[in-house]
Amino acid sequence: MGLGLAVLSLSAAQALEFKKPEDAIKYRQSAFALMGAHFSNVGAVVKGDKAFNAQDVAGDIAVVASLAALPWKAFGPGTEGGKAKPEIWAEGDKVKAGIEKFQTAVVALNDAGKTGNLDAIKKAFGNTAQSCKGCHDNYRKK
Amino acid sequence: MGLGLAVLSLSAAQALEFKKPEDAIKYRQSAFALMGAHFSNVGAVVKGDKAFNAQDVAGDIAVVASLAALPWKAFGPGTEGGKAKPEIWAEGDKVKAGIEKFQTAVVALNDAGKTGNLDAIKKAFGNTAQSCKGCHDNYRKK
Repeated sequence: MGLGLAVLSLSAAQALEFKKPEDAIKYRQSAFALMGAHFSNVGAVVKGDKAFNAQDVAGDIAVVASLAALPWKAFGPGTEGGKAKPEIWAEGDKVKAGIEKFQTAVVALNDAGKTGNLDAIKKAFGNTAQSCKGCHDNYRKK
Repeated sequence: MGLGLAVLSLSAAQALEFKKPEDAIKYRQSAFALMGAHFSNVGAVVKGDKAFNAQDVAGDIAVVASLAALPWKAFGPGTEGGKAKPEIWAEGDKVKAGIEKFQTAVVALNDAGKTGNLDAIKKAFGNTAQSCKGCHDNYRKK
């Protein structure tokens, strides 16, 4: 599998292999945890809770971008569980559209990060956060 | 913070900020879990348990390389715990040398992955695994 922001599906062919469903759950939760940590760093700057350092923000965004292709590969058939609602495995097309929306938003965020323009970063951050929320509302257990 | 394989230290200046020590532990364990998953995929090929697909192996190695700078940033002062032995915070120079050894090995592994030469990959994989083990033996609780 490659890095990058390729179009992904949840089909078995695209999924990573795991020995146990728990391994897949751990994998995707790890990817989300890392993305979340770095995305939150950007969020703190966007909200004004933290001073804007263009290099740091670009670095945090780059980490998010480098991870944006990973978690989806750990939602293969038979990996139900964790915080994931069963609807994920029933609504493949809708889930795939959500993933693509997120990945498109992350590409734009990464571009904004490279410009070092805080207004552009704020806008792209908001779009990305919205794309996260879309799937979290539908597919993540409270 | 940037991606890449820069020289890292465990000094406070280099560490990521976390609200709670548990967040730092979760962060570094997540980074190790993702690296471990992709490194194991390569290991399965090296051991002959899985057929060699050059593109897949290069992709797995690229993920390891993209994550190789992350976990160390979550061992800042006050983040003791998890599976980490307290010696980590007492033996900074030795730990730093171990991290650098690992990162150098990962750079070579990534170069080998790009060549698609299985013998080169096997050799670089072995060196990397040895660098992992060095710190695990000294600094990871059983």
